[in-house]
Amino acid sequence: MDLMKKSLEMHEHFGGKMEIRAKVPVQDTYDLSLAYSPGVAAPCIEIEKNRSLVYDYTMKGNLVAVVTDGTAVLGLGDIGPEAALPVMEGKALLLKRFANVDAVPVCLDTKNVDEIVQIVKAISPTYGGINLEDISAPRCFEIEDRLRAECNIPVFHDDQHGTAIVVGAGLINANKIIGKETEKMKIVINGAGAAGIAILRILLQMGYKNVVMCDTKGIIYEGRKEGMNPIKEGIAHLTNPEGLRGSMDDALVGADVFIGVSVANLLTEAHIKSMAKDPIVFALANPNPEITPENAKAWGVRIIGTGRSDHANQINNMLAFPGIFRGALDVRATDINEAMKLAAIEAIASLVTDQDLNEDFIVPSSMDERVAGVVAKAVGSAAIDSGVSELFNQPINNSVAI
Amino acid sequence: MDLMKKSLEMHEHFGGKMEIRAKVPVQDTYDLSLAYSPGVAAPCIEIEKNRSLVYDYTMKGNLVAVVTDGTAVLGLGDIGPEAALPVMEGKALLLKRFANVDAVPVCLDTKNVDEIVQIVKAISPTYGGINLEDISAPRCFEIEDRLRAECNIPVFHDDQHGTAIVVGAGLINANKIIGKETEKMKIVINGAGAAGIAILRILLQMGYKNVVMCDTKGIIYEGRKEGMNPIKEGIAHLTNPEGLRGSMDDALVGADVFIGVSVANLLTEAHIKSMAKDPIVFALANPNPEITPENAKAWGVRIIGTGRSDHANQINNMLAFPGIFRGALDVRATDINEAMKLAAIEAIASLVTDQDLNEDFIVPSSMDERVAGVVAKAVGSAAIDSGVSELFNQPINNSVAI
Repeated sequence: MDLMKKSLEMHEHFGGKMEIRAKVPVQDTYDLSLAYSPGVAAPCIEIEKNRSLVYDYTMKGNLVAVVTDGTAVLGLGDIGPEAALPVMEGKALLLKRFANVDAVPVCLDTKNVDEIVQIVKAISPTYGGINLEDISAPRCFEIEDRLRAECNIPVFHDDQHGTAIVVGAGLINANKIIGKETEKMKIVINGAGAAGIAILRILLQMGYKNVVMCDTKGIIYEGRKEGMNPIKEGIAHLTNPEGLRGSMDDALVGADVFIGVSVANLLTEAHIKSMAKDPIVFALANPNPEITPENAKAWGVRIIGTGRSDHANQINNMLAFPGIFRGALDVRATDINEAMKLAAIEAIASLVTDQDLNEDFIVPSSMDERVAGVVAKAVGSAAIDSGVSELFNQPINNSVAI
Repeated sequence: MDLMKKSLEMHEHFGGKMEIRAKVPVQDTYDLSLAYSPGVAAPCIEIEKNRSLVYDYTMKGNLVAVVTDGTAVLGLGDIGPEAALPVMEGKALLLKRFANVDAVPVCLDTKNVDEIVQIVKAISPTYGGINLEDISAPRCFEIEDRLRAECNIPVFHDDQHGTAIVVGAGLINANKIIGKETEKMKIVINGAGAAGIAILRILLQMGYKNVVMCDTKGIIYEGRKEGMNPIKEGIAHLTNPEGLRGSMDDALVGADVFIGVSVANLLTEAHIKSMAKDPIVFALANPNPEITPENAKAWGVRIIGTGRSDHANQINNMLAFPGIFRGALDVRATDINEAMKLAAIEAIASLVTDQDLNEDFIVPSSMDERVAGVVAKAVGSAAIDSGVSELFNQPINNSVAI
């Protein structure tokens, strides 16, 4: 594939994608005496007296660590911390390009959950936020939960929440076209990994009542014996109100929405025909979706989204994470909570106007320069309203513009 | 002090001193597809197959971590990781400005030696080198020794070796003026912390035979009972061939060189008068030296150097570390060994020509743009010659220009 060769050439030509640059001039010894010895003692002394001043005098307030252990990189699996580095630089590139967030890769040579938590906590003084990336499930859940509890800076596992947020936005807009009632819609999620579970959680918060989740063993239901664990027990409890059993084929009968975070070319014409009228399909397997947009349309899908930039309706977490970190950093949020994620969903959805909205345009383009700013404002306001902003630390009842 | 106020204003205005920037353009979805999904999979796959390709396709080969635990920052002591961050950004600034090395601060919220070693090893996949900074003695020795042994990238504790290298260069050039025989010279080092011990080690390698080291208990000698530890036992064994006992005052009698890494305003006229003819004094206490240049000259010191940029003969590790890392990264060195340090000393000394050399000009200016490049070439050649270059991994008997 020529794109792959081009990519290798580009990476080699530039020697990676990111660099560290100075924001201050050093032209003479006076400049040096301000930025380094002896002047640099001044901010050190002030920060020692009042630790929160680290946000005023250093790069911390705009700096995010993109942390991975290289265990679940793209569709490549456990390729290790070195091989994961191009992806982490890519995240840093997007954070800078779309939201002016400074981000550095932190690729860890350990897969031990306790160690990862301990290390990320120990390095956190330098950073204003932590973006967890490409860490395999179910380890990623425990790592994120523990770091959110133990760090005083926001921690966000993009593979979970970034994807879930864009799915949520896409679904809002798709339903503006379809016009079904949220509470009555049946949604099938295929794939119970990090992204699938995060999508489930967001959908439940958005008010969807009838979600059925499938894994490689079929429908997840209360009382299932095969392939269960505490997380899937939780899923069973929260989903599948009709108590369905069987395969994904059974789940799909009468479904209004299919969301796939699973494997390529899974959906057949029979699957689509078994769904309810005007089916919505988000086929997010990468790089090849569960169904091609061509087949989807031919077989009767009304709205099809994939993860690919060469198709319409790209459900891409790029629409979420740059603006989410921008917003969190701007108000010095201590967390990225559910209110902030829901605000991001609404913000992304709002960027498609009623005039522009159609079956092939339910989410903004990945290159839309407006997205990060609009998401950031919404996320920052939600952080303030929910009381997790250190800059505006009084909970405010009415949403404020920032 | 107005400089301190100016420094605070500068740090606040810019929000710290460093930022992360993209080296590659992202103007359209094609650029995105190269730098991010799906093209980014290409370098990931290649690196997974051959880990050393991480140097070709990522930022690792030019990226240094500036690691501290904030326990010995400037003269301020244990001020913690947040308050240390301005200094670490300052180091990153100088590495970029003078040697085009990308460097990021890593300020650790732990003082535990085992944890620091474990964490730095775990984060090392992202970096081409580790610069340890402002870690208190004696912990810094163990941390550096263990990391040098356990990491496959160069690890360098600048507070030790950076200062020692510039002292070595200064001494070579001072002695070109004074003209004494190295082997017969008596040198007193006052201060047995990280810098003092590193200076001692370098001086012994440079061929100085009669070095006497003093700490707060006075002269260190074999058999001393008070204030000893394994490191000081080693010092006693390697130094003080005349078996001197007593205070620093006693040590100074007849000394050719005094090197202070101790406290301000320590040296009196009597001290200087007790030294040998044409005394050399490097008074490196910061920000205020053991003796002012004015007093030194008035009392008979022939050559006086300090750590300050507002005096002649600034003995500043800025002359060393940018070029050392540039050289180590350029040849992909796995270590910064003694041969490389000695090469750096000779390179720095060589930058003062015989025409320029005088009592008030024994080392190049900190702003001299040539220094890092000349040091880098010498250090890179020494790495190749001593067999620690991964790019040129055959030991070569004759020094080569690179």
